[in-house]
Amino acid sequence: MFDTIIIGSGPAGMSAAIYLCRANKKVLIIEKEAPGGQMTRTDVIENYPGFKKVAGADLAYQMYDQVVELGAEFAFEEVIGLEKNEHFKVITQDGAYEAKTVIYATGNTNKLLNVPGERKLRGKGISFCAVCDGGLYKGKDVFVIGDNKSAFEESVYLAGICKNVKLVTKEKEIDEEALNIIKKSNNIEILFDTKVLEFIGTKELEQIKVLKEDQEIIYDASCAFLYLGFIPSSNSIENLNVLDSEGYIEVDKEFKTNIPGVFAAGDCLKKTLKQISTAVSDGAIAATSAIKFLQKK
Amino acid sequence: MFDTIIIGSGPAGMSAAIYLCRANKKVLIIEKEAPGGQMTRTDVIENYPGFKKVAGADLAYQMYDQVVELGAEFAFEEVIGLEKNEHFKVITQDGAYEAKTVIYATGNTNKLLNVPGERKLRGKGISFCAVCDGGLYKGKDVFVIGDNKSAFEESVYLAGICKNVKLVTKEKEIDEEALNIIKKSNNIEILFDTKVLEFIGTKELEQIKVLKEDQEIIYDASCAFLYLGFIPSSNSIENLNVLDSEGYIEVDKEFKTNIPGVFAAGDCLKKTLKQISTAVSDGAIAATSAIKFLQKK
Repeated sequence: MFDTIIIGSGPAGMSAAIYLCRANKKVLIIEKEAPGGQMTRTDVIENYPGFKKVAGADLAYQMYDQVVELGAEFAFEEVIGLEKNEHFKVITQDGAYEAKTVIYATGNTNKLLNVPGERKLRGKGISFCAVCDGGLYKGKDVFVIGDNKSAFEESVYLAGICKNVKLVTKEKEIDEEALNIIKKSNNIEILFDTKVLEFIGTKELEQIKVLKEDQEIIYDASCAFLYLGFIPSSNSIENLNVLDSEGYIEVDKEFKTNIPGVFAAGDCLKKTLKQISTAVSDGAIAATSAIKFLQKK
Repeated sequence: MFDTIIIGSGPAGMSAAIYLCRANKKVLIIEKEAPGGQMTRTDVIENYPGFKKVAGADLAYQMYDQVVELGAEFAFEEVIGLEKNEHFKVITQDGAYEAKTVIYATGNTNKLLNVPGERKLRGKGISFCAVCDGGLYKGKDVFVIGDNKSAFEESVYLAGICKNVKLVTKEKEIDEEALNIIKKSNNIEILFDTKVLEFIGTKELEQIKVLKEDQEIIYDASCAFLYLGFIPSSNSIENLNVLDSEGYIEVDKEFKTNIPGVFAAGDCLKKTLKQISTAVSDGAIAATSAIKFLQKK
């Protein structure tokens, strides 16, 4: 019986583990891939305070090493369900584990266009986060692809850093408020009624092929930022009625779900800023709430 | 004219600077002491994800080095006021600086008992944070000093880590709910009607002299955790009507104050968990809000 099972080992899960272990709690982290979550798929991280420039895999390893030394156990399995009886039973594809509290830190995945070249060039010129990677493209020409508010906002963000921004949208027009803000940056060009057909490049993204008003065009591009939305990784908790309509886990300010003893942290929550720096905060607060819950039991 | 002036260079201010600089904004950080805020007064940090064990001064330097390399400027001066006209004028004891946005990250100070030995032994056995330092006293006897909810909660937290906890309170009784939770830990002794007279130790805390019901007693002690409350460092913004009754700066979820263009982050806000991991999150979100404000201007 564990005090806490943490599902997911990105920065939110790792941070929660640090706080729980230092409070002398018995912790199991269940991770279906490599420890580190999205950090393991990030080339270079330049915006986590304390690390000027660090490879995502290195930061992931340092957090892993830290939590293992503090006494957290790891199980590399996929969680498929959660049952609540006197305690909690976390069911994986290989078995089951019991705990008094559970913290979901399962993250999310980025939606894709599903066009040729996209999976191959992820992290090699195709990015899902302007705040993370925009700084790497200072003075260069970049693309933003998407039809939602995030795509518009991040185009403006990138316009403050990059030489030119091409915003690719399937729509024929966009809402006036967004348009007015975009117009203030004189280096954003909106490509209306345009679909991406292919990302082209051998080692890095080099070109983007689009269909614009029935015409194929190939643009040179050093980076494409995709804002197509997210899919929260919350399937395994679907049965417990803690999700919002988009599949995000709903929590209060202390990162409690509506099930006493179940907490959630990081990108499986609806958040405006998905960063390592915000994930470690979520994890620390969720762990503190779990510790208080354990104390009262 | 700066895009943003950040007041305070603890982890909240440093994190804000990282996000602003990477968004190509012109940033000035004003700090009245050494860069790093409370980190500079912390011996060892073990709970910031990515750093297994780091001297507070080292982590402070690493963040300082990071923001300087990203282009942030520093002014080592004390801020004494803020004026709002078309932009903002931050007034220091040595002059004034102008900016389009301001982020307060001024932190807070811990209230003291003001008894002999207390200032000398700060960080040398006298701690203000069980979550930060409790893990350093595993299996040892510790004291908690205070009469408020935090003192009671942190006693229970420490009881899960340390051998014995003595809770020193001036009161003759404490509220029943707190008492019931405390009683579940069989290693907490409450010293009612007790005042600390002196902290004794040459290099580290060794003993605590108390007055208990008119009798002086000296206890051996390896650590005393003081929960006497905080004083938010917010004097210089008093005139702008953004403080709550305790002097904390009031913000919304995006860390905006009620003055457009003025944001706040970190321990100058009312927060339940004051940690480096939560401060860097506040700073990142406040910076993102400032960037959006600058874009709309």
